[in-house]
Amino acid sequence: MIQAERWLLPDGIEEVLPPQAARIEAARREVLDLFARWGYEFVITPHIEFLESLLTSASADLDLRTFKVTDPLSGRQMGLRADITPQVARVDAHSLGRAEPTRLCYAGSVLHTRPRALATSRSPIQLGAELYGDASGESDIEVISLMLAMLEQMQVKGVHLDLGHVGIYRALAKSAQLPAEREQQLFDALQAKACDEVAALTQALDQPLKSMLCALPRLCGGKEVLARAKTQLGSAADEVKVAIDALEHIANALAERWPDLPLHFDLAELRGYHYHSGVVFAAFVPAVGGAIAQGGRYDDIGAQFGRARPATGFSTDLKTLTDLGQFEPPAVAAPIWAPPSSEPSLWHAILRLRQSGRRVIQALPGQDLSAARAAGCTQQLLFTKGSWQPMPLPPLQSTLRE
Amino acid sequence: MIQAERWLLPDGIEEVLPPQAARIEAARREVLDLFARWGYEFVITPHIEFLESLLTSASADLDLRTFKVTDPLSGRQMGLRADITPQVARVDAHSLGRAEPTRLCYAGSVLHTRPRALATSRSPIQLGAELYGDASGESDIEVISLMLAMLEQMQVKGVHLDLGHVGIYRALAKSAQLPAEREQQLFDALQAKACDEVAALTQALDQPLKSMLCALPRLCGGKEVLARAKTQLGSAADEVKVAIDALEHIANALAERWPDLPLHFDLAELRGYHYHSGVVFAAFVPAVGGAIAQGGRYDDIGAQFGRARPATGFSTDLKTLTDLGQFEPPAVAAPIWAPPSSEPSLWHAILRLRQSGRRVIQALPGQDLSAARAAGCTQQLLFTKGSWQPMPLPPLQSTLRE
Repeated sequence: MIQAERWLLPDGIEEVLPPQAARIEAARREVLDLFARWGYEFVITPHIEFLESLLTSASADLDLRTFKVTDPLSGRQMGLRADITPQVARVDAHSLGRAEPTRLCYAGSVLHTRPRALATSRSPIQLGAELYGDASGESDIEVISLMLAMLEQMQVKGVHLDLGHVGIYRALAKSAQLPAEREQQLFDALQAKACDEVAALTQALDQPLKSMLCALPRLCGGKEVLARAKTQLGSAADEVKVAIDALEHIANALAERWPDLPLHFDLAELRGYHYHSGVVFAAFVPAVGGAIAQGGRYDDIGAQFGRARPATGFSTDLKTLTDLGQFEPPAVAAPIWAPPSSEPSLWHAILRLRQSGRRVIQALPGQDLSAARAAGCTQQLLFTKGSWQPMPLPPLQSTLRE
Repeated sequence: MIQAERWLLPDGIEEVLPPQAARIEAARREVLDLFARWGYEFVITPHIEFLESLLTSASADLDLRTFKVTDPLSGRQMGLRADITPQVARVDAHSLGRAEPTRLCYAGSVLHTRPRALATSRSPIQLGAELYGDASGESDIEVISLMLAMLEQMQVKGVHLDLGHVGIYRALAKSAQLPAEREQQLFDALQAKACDEVAALTQALDQPLKSMLCALPRLCGGKEVLARAKTQLGSAADEVKVAIDALEHIANALAERWPDLPLHFDLAELRGYHYHSGVVFAAFVPAVGGAIAQGGRYDDIGAQFGRARPATGFSTDLKTLTDLGQFEPPAVAAPIWAPPSSEPSLWHAILRLRQSGRRVIQALPGQDLSAARAAGCTQQLLFTKGSWQPMPLPPLQSTLRE
């Protein structure tokens, strides 16, 4: 069956047919227009670039998920982008180089060598917004609000928001001064919320640090988590207190703006955050295992491109968003059917209708009104009283009448 | 300078910054909306797929221009799409499988290992429309008309159209029954319009065939070329007569629709047409060496995907089109500046303005009205008479007044 299977697509690589493709295109426009109304400027980053530029500050995971090819022009290694955020950070830091805070947004395909999870696409359409140049929580509040506004616009129902802060674990891990391998084990144990394992790995540490690391996996839940964290992590480095305060400030602002939004805190959650350095957040819906949109603060990337800039932002997969949301594109009038004549007056009548925004499909030789109906037309152009006019299609002749 | 150059992009790979990116996005929407009004349905094809599927019926040239990677999931060779048309042909033949004529359109990046010409992009945004299921010249007339309508919409000035037919050379070459290597030499000589070389290569052929192949490179020019071709190629196989008649039919229809459009015929031109089987066409403007949009009939591709369907269509590069055209996106109102307060009434006022379509940029901590002016704002939100109202920004204080 090799011949028959030639056009099968690789696992996790999809094509999108009508009318779903039109729905995705409409959603893309809605979201980019929303971003524009919030002041976010559109940029287009390349699908391929030198690997060292693409993987700057990337995790080993992102590296593994990046397809690599050799550039025949330069002989250098290139990668297919598996994430757009680091590219946009370069645009801000290097290509634009503005002094003022800068809001940027983007939409485009990314490719992954392997799916993030089973039955996940390897070619999502990544869509996101990033805010550079401001280190305050106000920026985080703005981008999280924009993410929530996007989910509302797409009519995604039942959203809840997870908040965390990668600085908390990092400050504790720094204090612990564990060897790299042991720190990785600790990290993995925390992600698995394996409290016994965390206890075993931190056995040799000083008591306050040890009990704080053991407390971390249990610091998840509703808003009371922040109060508990203040107590249980009270003797940690100052960065921890600053991080908890930042989370509280953001959570309060969001609760005011979105009073019905369930907020969930998880101070040990670090999975899926690669280059992040501060507050991290993710939106979930009950039906889907993974986050449907996520982001956070990543103040460290800019430095790699020659200019350190505070940064925060989020991204989502347009295809997932369109599948999940009940967003419906604006209704368009049914197309008008035109006869197959090459009469110049017909051509001009068709052009005028199209210029006025109507869809007009001209019959090809041999097509009759059954093709018009199959194409969804409800009207046809007829020459009446000296001009071409859209008239209702005649009703289907019932040949089955008794 | 390796460190400083890390974020430089490979040759021919571009990023697009504001405001140019917004102009490209606006052009994309204009053109896709135009295609929709002509009845063309949008499809999204993958950026990567199995090589054998991507290179079905591809020329050696397209093969060389395609980046290849190995799929870690299947172990099979995959290619990054260097052309979207064959993918859309698969969608028509295999994925949709409709009996009726089908109109499809698409827009997306393609990648080339090497540029088509010096200083040409290796990552154009290919945008095109294809009509499947009708073998008549009416389909060719429709897609050429749509291509011309697209160039008008993008306000590209000084367009002229080249018409040709790959069936003419193919029929003559078939009659000549030359060995493959010699036919390639003949092909190259014809493309170079090297008449002496064509004469030498066809030395051993029968007189009528020889003189017809020698006439071919001179069959270029205005509409009189078709009359000359009828005489000079009069003793060729029937396909040649059919091809000339098809060209004449199309040229007449186009001349009626676009009386001011310069038409140019070149019956030997085959360069850049890979999978084409019939009428081919290309739009040029004086300032640019290569075609700015081109296409033709390619009836043979569908068979490779399990269903032979007549096909005709065209494509263009959105970035070139936007650069060349004088198309201007619809004007949008200047953004409104909002103060950095977290006052709920301000948040709701901002939301309402955004919902009404206005752009609103909220100040971040420390930003003053100079940032508002830098962002292009002409109004700011002020709390007056019990509500937040957009008011003109105060005039710049001239500190240089004498």
